[in-house]
Amino acid sequence: MSGLLIKNCRIFSLTERTGETISYKNGAVGIAGNRIVYVGNDPDAIVRFEREHGTGLEVLDAHGMLLMPGLINLHNHVAMTLMRGYANDMELQSWLTEKIWPFEAKLLPEDVSRGAALGIAEMLLGGTTTFADMYWHTDQIIEQAIRSGVRMVACPAFTEHVFDGYLDRMEQMVGRYHGAAAGRIAVWIAPHAPYTCRPEQIRESLSLCRKYDIGVHIHLSETASEVKTVQEHYGQTPIRLMQELGVFDYRTLAAHCVYPTDEELEILRNDHVTVVYNPQSNMKLASGIAPISRMLAQGINVCMGTDGPSSNNDLDMWDEMRTGALLQKVSTGDPRSLPAETVLRMVTVDAAKAIGHAGELGVVAEGALADLILIDLDQPHLTPDYDLMSNLVYCARGADVDTVLIDGQVVVRAKRLVTLDFETIKQEVDQTLQNLAQRA
Amino acid sequence: MSGLLIKNCRIFSLTERTGETISYKNGAVGIAGNRIVYVGNDPDAIVRFEREHGTGLEVLDAHGMLLMPGLINLHNHVAMTLMRGYANDMELQSWLTEKIWPFEAKLLPEDVSRGAALGIAEMLLGGTTTFADMYWHTDQIIEQAIRSGVRMVACPAFTEHVFDGYLDRMEQMVGRYHGAAAGRIAVWIAPHAPYTCRPEQIRESLSLCRKYDIGVHIHLSETASEVKTVQEHYGQTPIRLMQELGVFDYRTLAAHCVYPTDEELEILRNDHVTVVYNPQSNMKLASGIAPISRMLAQGINVCMGTDGPSSNNDLDMWDEMRTGALLQKVSTGDPRSLPAETVLRMVTVDAAKAIGHAGELGVVAEGALADLILIDLDQPHLTPDYDLMSNLVYCARGADVDTVLIDGQVVVRAKRLVTLDFETIKQEVDQTLQNLAQRA
Repeated sequence: MSGLLIKNCRIFSLTERTGETISYKNGAVGIAGNRIVYVGNDPDAIVRFEREHGTGLEVLDAHGMLLMPGLINLHNHVAMTLMRGYANDMELQSWLTEKIWPFEAKLLPEDVSRGAALGIAEMLLGGTTTFADMYWHTDQIIEQAIRSGVRMVACPAFTEHVFDGYLDRMEQMVGRYHGAAAGRIAVWIAPHAPYTCRPEQIRESLSLCRKYDIGVHIHLSETASEVKTVQEHYGQTPIRLMQELGVFDYRTLAAHCVYPTDEELEILRNDHVTVVYNPQSNMKLASGIAPISRMLAQGINVCMGTDGPSSNNDLDMWDEMRTGALLQKVSTGDPRSLPAETVLRMVTVDAAKAIGHAGELGVVAEGALADLILIDLDQPHLTPDYDLMSNLVYCARGADVDTVLIDGQVVVRAKRLVTLDFETIKQEVDQTLQNLAQRA
Repeated sequence: MSGLLIKNCRIFSLTERTGETISYKNGAVGIAGNRIVYVGNDPDAIVRFEREHGTGLEVLDAHGMLLMPGLINLHNHVAMTLMRGYANDMELQSWLTEKIWPFEAKLLPEDVSRGAALGIAEMLLGGTTTFADMYWHTDQIIEQAIRSGVRMVACPAFTEHVFDGYLDRMEQMVGRYHGAAAGRIAVWIAPHAPYTCRPEQIRESLSLCRKYDIGVHIHLSETASEVKTVQEHYGQTPIRLMQELGVFDYRTLAAHCVYPTDEELEILRNDHVTVVYNPQSNMKLASGIAPISRMLAQGINVCMGTDGPSSNNDLDMWDEMRTGALLQKVSTGDPRSLPAETVLRMVTVDAAKAIGHAGELGVVAEGALADLILIDLDQPHLTPDYDLMSNLVYCARGADVDTVLIDGQVVVRAKRLVTLDFETIKQEVDQTLQNLAQRA
């Protein structure tokens, strides 16, 4: 089994227990295959690890770097890189009906594949090691995820107009990809939203969760107009309606939740629903401000996502953490809202828990999967070093990530992609955009 | 006179006229001394420029890069890098009285000098070429600015407790530094804020503006509690009070302006006051959301600043532009608020106008000062390229800046500092922090 030793680095990780951290000023991490087998600073243990792995051992001197868990982005539409900057500063309905939907209607599977490659390249360079994605032509995105080495919860979407054959397609998708790439790929269902799917379709789709023990990814209570529409059609608020349909009987990623009622907050907590906070998208589209501080106070599991790159417009989780924390402070009027440690927890340990990898992802611990990143700390904007968590949340950015490992494999080294080639991706995206321009 | 030719690059700049841009897909900029003497893509003109400058000409091939104006940060306390991450997620009054003020009370001139060097290094790497700074021991900061090559509006601050001798100190400071370094340094007065200075002190300090034709930099209407305090003491709202004292008879940078009344918005417009929007600081300290969209609609000149790095916590103007735009959209409920072009205008042409450099800074134009940056566009998060301004505001970040010129001098090359040495700065900051820890 291949071995990798990362040494001479600072190590930092939260753990599942609030307030507990794993921290070494000058430590080492030993990796065998796809797992972490040693974390610490005991010279004898490090020598033992080196000896056990003999000449096949790769050693990475990470002097001046911080080793921490890779970041987890729980709401994305990664192929929408194709629409990055395509439409901005527009009112939501015009944005969707005049720009985004007509563009998407022309997308072929190969376009989605190319857009996904571009977005995955961006995520890897920025230290995101796992993402949950909701889109169409999901097999194309999964193939790119497999090729790139990233970890993915793939969630093929349906709306009321494209539900025909969804169950059959999902049976095939789950059979082919759920657990693929040594477990890096999971497949979940994705009813697009309460206002775009019919209740009976959502109920039917849940049969897949029952049968395969998979979860649900859904847009929920994103805008005031969604809440109004759902209430008018079904006499229920969206979160309440989803509960009644049985969605929350399964592991659920509920993206947005900007407008939950008090009753719905209770439901989210009692049913162990994970809320995915997408501050930059909610701000850019003027959807509103999710009451994250209240959710956390009530014990709801809150994680974070970038949403798609056409409404963000990037896939940088550092930016998302920072903006998300700042937005809660100003909107609650309390600078103590959403402190740095809580934000880091949302993108690591709490996100791992949300997708069924508690203790295995989002931590630097013996036995955990080796999804790790190295941050170059030796830069002006990360100096001085009073408070590492504060510097990570309020100052760090994607470009500070030097090295990325996923499942024990190096996918970014010295800020360069290892498994993907950006020049090829860029040429293919250019070709796709030319093709799209010619398509009626 | 030294010559520099930057060629094979994309060029983009706004101009003073709204809606007008200077744009070349593949152009060149010729610089003689500290001024731009050629902008365009005419091969004959480029050859002529090369011939005129002969063998002394430096040629920079900027293939794949964007050349644009350097960014202008109009509200900073740059030496507060020393307190970056020192106190976070705290209530404002505790933050000030328990952490920031006791720390600042121990600062000696050499500490401020070192903190300034660190912050200037960070700004240069992120493409900020001019900054307005308000602090103490300003001569130390100016010396670092001169050494580093950055352009600076230096604003020595006073409060009611440190006004003794201010006028004399300022006379000396203006005499020594106003217009220094070939005009890179300006010196303005800085009454700290309406609630920390006495009205008669502010009035007295304005004699310097009259005598030397210099401007005013002030914190104004930053928090609800400031407005309340000022109203209780003086029976006036802060902006109104400053007008009555005559502050706005001079060029004024009014930082924050979170709580202007309708009447005060009129004053800001009629008196040509520049409002400096500091979204990240206002969010982090939960001060509130400045009504920037309303100000712009009324024709007020609005620019941007990072505020000090202890309340931000970085000096990245890209981050500030993005967050500032997103915050206006979500707070007005209108995604069309503060579009990308307006934000870029605020940190370039409108900022140049605010400090008396209209047409000379913030533009890529023949005759303008050569304060320019090159951005590495060939990256996943800046691909595809539908809309350059959108990509710059919503996706770009400090780390995308490859080269920085100020006053015709290269201060950052290939993402490395030329005029400063970060390792030395870091060692000196470490030493300062150790000294501070030992000081009672």
